[in-house]
Amino acid sequence: MSEIISRDQLLEHWLGHRRVTRRTIEAFPDDNSFSTYSIGGMRTFATLVNEFLSMSVPTLVGIVSEEWPMERKEAPTTRAGALERWDADTKQIEALWPQISEGRFQETATAFGQWTMPVWGLLWYIIDNEIHHRGQGFVYLRALGVEPPQFPDRS
Amino acid sequence: MSEIISRDQLLEHWLGHRRVTRRTIEAFPDDNSFSTYSIGGMRTFATLVNEFLSMSVPTLVGIVSEEWPMERKEAPTTRAGALERWDADTKQIEALWPQISEGRFQETATAFGQWTMPVWGLLWYIIDNEIHHRGQGFVYLRALGVEPPQFPDRS
Repeated sequence: MSEIISRDQLLEHWLGHRRVTRRTIEAFPDDNSFSTYSIGGMRTFATLVNEFLSMSVPTLVGIVSEEWPMERKEAPTTRAGALERWDADTKQIEALWPQISEGRFQETATAFGQWTMPVWGLLWYIIDNEIHHRGQGFVYLRALGVEPPQFPDRS
Repeated sequence: MSEIISRDQLLEHWLGHRRVTRRTIEAFPDDNSFSTYSIGGMRTFATLVNEFLSMSVPTLVGIVSEEWPMERKEAPTTRAGALERWDADTKQIEALWPQISEGRFQETATAFGQWTMPVWGLLWYIIDNEIHHRGQGFVYLRALGVEPPQFPDRS
């Protein structure tokens, strides 16, 4: 059997997306629009980032330990506060990733007692959800007159 | 070696996202906002859908045949026109997918003479780009007072 994507490639793919999201947080203006601006009644980018933070490490912890403690934190109110949590989480992701056991990606798990799917599906849901809502952050930036980061640049 | 995601799972994952994008096209109002509305100087959703259409099947053809004919079509102006092309492309994707040879996903390819990366990376770029810009379409819909499709529902 030839693999589609390796474990190392998937981690690097995810971290690349996280770097784009980090630059999106940084791109918000020096006013408080990061935590106050939205369009059409949607959530602020600070609240969306809080959702990313609430999903990534807790889900990885669950995948590794099979315990799913729900973690609810207040949304960051500043870019600096968000970036601090972001960087701490990136380190945790890098530490947790090698602890995912061989074969675990194809096992079925129920995350936080609610979402039952293969482990690969849980991981993709986190990544896809971040891409989806970060795209919305790009629109907020454009509407604020700010050039968003380059989507293809994952460096 | 245990795989992360199988070939069938990746196709189904992609097709699930395409169903969400299809519902996003359908969700635009009965006026011409699908092909005229945008925020902050961004592209209309019709133009973004045209980008999805210009990438998906042509890239798959290139992956399978190693020939990369660039295809430039006018953006669809109506939802019906977009959906017709969308459904035709879905059939082509389903037909091309089994023609990707064993081991091809880990080979390096240069798409359209320009983008050099592993074949898996080309495929993920197409899917991620669709998620990214569809998220922007969700903001357009919200700004137009329309409820977008459910992101987690891939049925």
